[in-house]
Amino acid sequence: MPPRIVLPAGVSSEIFERALAEFRHLVGAQHVLRGADLLPYRKIMIPASEHDYEPSAAVLAGSVSDVQGVLAVCNKYRIALWPISTGRNLGYGSALPATRGQVILDLKRMNRILEVDPQLCTALVEPGVTYQQLHDYLKDRALALWLDFPGDGPLVGPVGNTLERGTGRTAYADHFANACGMEVVLADGRVLRTGMGSLPNSTSWQVFKYGYGPYLDGLFTQSGFGIVTKLGLWLMPAPPAYRTVLVQLWHDDDLAAAVEAVRPLRLSGTITNPCVLTNANLMLTQLTRRSELYQGTGAVPESLIVSVAREHGIAPWNLTFSLYGTPEQIAPSLDVVTKAFDSTGGRVVLDYHDGAQSNELSLSAFSLLNWVGGGGLVWLASVSPARGRDALSQRDLARRILAQHGLDYLASVTVQGRDLHHLAAVIFDHEDAQARLRVRSCLEELVAAFNGNGYGIYRASIDCMGEVARAYGEVNRSVNRALKRALDPNGVLAPGKSGIHVAGS
Amino acid sequence: MPPRIVLPAGVSSEIFERALAEFRHLVGAQHVLRGADLLPYRKIMIPASEHDYEPSAAVLAGSVSDVQGVLAVCNKYRIALWPISTGRNLGYGSALPATRGQVILDLKRMNRILEVDPQLCTALVEPGVTYQQLHDYLKDRALALWLDFPGDGPLVGPVGNTLERGTGRTAYADHFANACGMEVVLADGRVLRTGMGSLPNSTSWQVFKYGYGPYLDGLFTQSGFGIVTKLGLWLMPAPPAYRTVLVQLWHDDDLAAAVEAVRPLRLSGTITNPCVLTNANLMLTQLTRRSELYQGTGAVPESLIVSVAREHGIAPWNLTFSLYGTPEQIAPSLDVVTKAFDSTGGRVVLDYHDGAQSNELSLSAFSLLNWVGGGGLVWLASVSPARGRDALSQRDLARRILAQHGLDYLASVTVQGRDLHHLAAVIFDHEDAQARLRVRSCLEELVAAFNGNGYGIYRASIDCMGEVARAYGEVNRSVNRALKRALDPNGVLAPGKSGIHVAGS
Repeated sequence: MPPRIVLPAGVSSEIFERALAEFRHLVGAQHVLRGADLLPYRKIMIPASEHDYEPSAAVLAGSVSDVQGVLAVCNKYRIALWPISTGRNLGYGSALPATRGQVILDLKRMNRILEVDPQLCTALVEPGVTYQQLHDYLKDRALALWLDFPGDGPLVGPVGNTLERGTGRTAYADHFANACGMEVVLADGRVLRTGMGSLPNSTSWQVFKYGYGPYLDGLFTQSGFGIVTKLGLWLMPAPPAYRTVLVQLWHDDDLAAAVEAVRPLRLSGTITNPCVLTNANLMLTQLTRRSELYQGTGAVPESLIVSVAREHGIAPWNLTFSLYGTPEQIAPSLDVVTKAFDSTGGRVVLDYHDGAQSNELSLSAFSLLNWVGGGGLVWLASVSPARGRDALSQRDLARRILAQHGLDYLASVTVQGRDLHHLAAVIFDHEDAQARLRVRSCLEELVAAFNGNGYGIYRASIDCMGEVARAYGEVNRSVNRALKRALDPNGVLAPGKSGIHVAGS
Repeated sequence: MPPRIVLPAGVSSEIFERALAEFRHLVGAQHVLRGADLLPYRKIMIPASEHDYEPSAAVLAGSVSDVQGVLAVCNKYRIALWPISTGRNLGYGSALPATRGQVILDLKRMNRILEVDPQLCTALVEPGVTYQQLHDYLKDRALALWLDFPGDGPLVGPVGNTLERGTGRTAYADHFANACGMEVVLADGRVLRTGMGSLPNSTSWQVFKYGYGPYLDGLFTQSGFGIVTKLGLWLMPAPPAYRTVLVQLWHDDDLAAAVEAVRPLRLSGTITNPCVLTNANLMLTQLTRRSELYQGTGAVPESLIVSVAREHGIAPWNLTFSLYGTPEQIAPSLDVVTKAFDSTGGRVVLDYHDGAQSNELSLSAFSLLNWVGGGGLVWLASVSPARGRDALSQRDLARRILAQHGLDYLASVTVQGRDLHHLAAVIFDHEDAQARLRVRSCLEELVAAFNGNGYGIYRASIDCMGEVARAYGEVNRSVNRALKRALDPNGVLAPGKSGIHVAGS
């Protein structure tokens, strides 16, 4: 295959060759990829054509000074640069940039675990570190510290996931809330350490977030305002014991009662981790494939899903959470919890297994891809108050619109705290161009409907970033643009990320 | 007394009169104060001369549109504007601006409690709302929701305290972490709602913080980047029961063992609120005055403090925290806690009373002013890891430097989580010019010594903002300056706040 030539927007072939030569000089020729070597970066699961997001090259930086050098070249030639850490933003665009022709800055070589403090339960890591690597590190040293990771845990890393504001399933589920201190290379190459990290000889970079003056860390999440090259993490001290609880809700509308039952338990601190309600269809992806169940047209009928699920002992909604502590501390909380479900019609099953709630890395979450072959996946991630009626209303909205496009409703509803996250996995055959178009148009309708009902999208795939950002209105957009101009006047960093461009009215 | 004429920097008397006329037209003549009417704003406790921070006028805005109008006038004439909510930033500069000649924008008239949601345990309030007002509101409606407030609780309000990143004593002690959603009037008059607040008809402004794209709320804390006119709060559901525990540490160095003992309990979630260690001298301010104890020169000898304290049954260090939950949940945690102190030499006393840990507003914390008459108070607020050795080292540093200036060591050491806050109250006679100078020079030395040892200052009085900001280095300062220019290009909002000015290299 001849090398594909995808030039960065507004950059001539001659200038781009010069830039590539400078990249090679900086990081070594073997770390500058283009053409066929970009294949691993080009694979996407979302319902878009990779052509629209095709990168021009990839540069694998090995150090902060590499990152600074690459940025200097990009600023000189006005080349857009898309930083990735492990590049596995699966179902949101994977490694690909928000616009065609950007150069991927791959940080996977920067994978040092710089510090783990077992007393303070903190770590400092580089962007290439994966959860698996950190997990192994802790295990090898027999450190009693737990990780909280997203569904694709083993493949991805804490820096990328935290910057996307990902979540997990333990008491440390809010990854950004449990991060402390960043090192950020700014577009002009200067290195900012946030929080207490700016103080020379600081003792407190990984223990106190806010520093002095405006607290800046939030700026560098879901944005292209800087390249995070180090991130502090809070790790969960391994609890002496835990019990994971499953509550089976045997009627579809019991979802509401379950949300109402767990919210006060979550807010009182009796339950300290997210309460995840998984629907029957999403549960079934662990056990069977769509084609084994149903060969008709349109979405698999809900009644069929429910009856097959029942055969496997799976309820329409399946709630899980854990209690952590000493056995003596867990016992009275278990009583409180069990009592709370008396009136909901939920059946409480003790000692259910969900590894994500107890520091076990696994890829089982990705069995959901087997539901339909062909590797298509895109997430719809929206937020509401943790109220039963908002859970039902999002369920109904998603199920109806998906069915109108012949797509199944695979969802989890999670009571994080006061907020409830509705997460639908849209699974389709990515090889099938018709299916891609269908999902794409369904997604547009879903985003519009959810926004229209006040259920904002909190994380979006690269092909939806613009439309999601527009929903947040002109003031929000122009503030983001002003901040972008202040921090990256040439707009070389991740243009289009979260719908933010340096230019525009 | 003839009206004092303090003109804003670079503004002529004629222009200023014109601006005042426009302010009067906007908000009503009775809401534009100057001269002798500014007396209530001029009172400070910190060791500075009020002359250096004297305001030019005060404008009392009654609405968002008043705020917008005032900002337009300030931009037109380049008049610096210093927003205050209740103006009682006691020990940090009270209502006074960071530089002489600013116009105070007093928001106390904007004191509506806009919403309290008893299911979701949230509130939405304006800047003039005080903790007392919100407390009374909840009590009147018999809502089982607790507030977390700072030591000066009844006088101050959640907006001002949260924006200064103040802390309290319950499980909701980190006020910024428990705030959700802001309305911010930007310098150009546009209104930004952060988080989900930008989405039209959002259901989730007070339940989900992060919104979509960069998370901006941190920008508006400890800064002059915008005027916060509404703030969402998370309220603590009243626990079914609680027990406040006192642990008496009978040797000065037991402080270290106590910190080591509580850190794991705090990180495991057995203790969910801050663990506050108060020293004997600070405890004694509730019971006696300095002059009754000691008439000599220099700091009161430590041995005298310890022996008088012992007579009152007060230990050199007195640790308090609470356990919240049902009595059945509290019992096993109390066992864990009691056992943890077996080896520390601490004496555990159950059911101690500290109203700040259980939703009781009181002004008792301010008895500390009676230690020395004359109303002088300035706080030294530094942070370290929650380690015994860092507690001792800050204690020794502060006590030594204070004693060198003849000042007493009144301190609390608080294990917030992974971080430990060392807070020293410097009490002096504000009427005494010599004492002010002595405290001022002591404070400079303290700030330099704490910074030099890597114990960063996280909140500073108006006379220390510049020196504290400088310690965080040039990159941090220039990033703050760039953000300031992006959001407030004319630099009219709170110049000097946290050491940030729009101009400068």
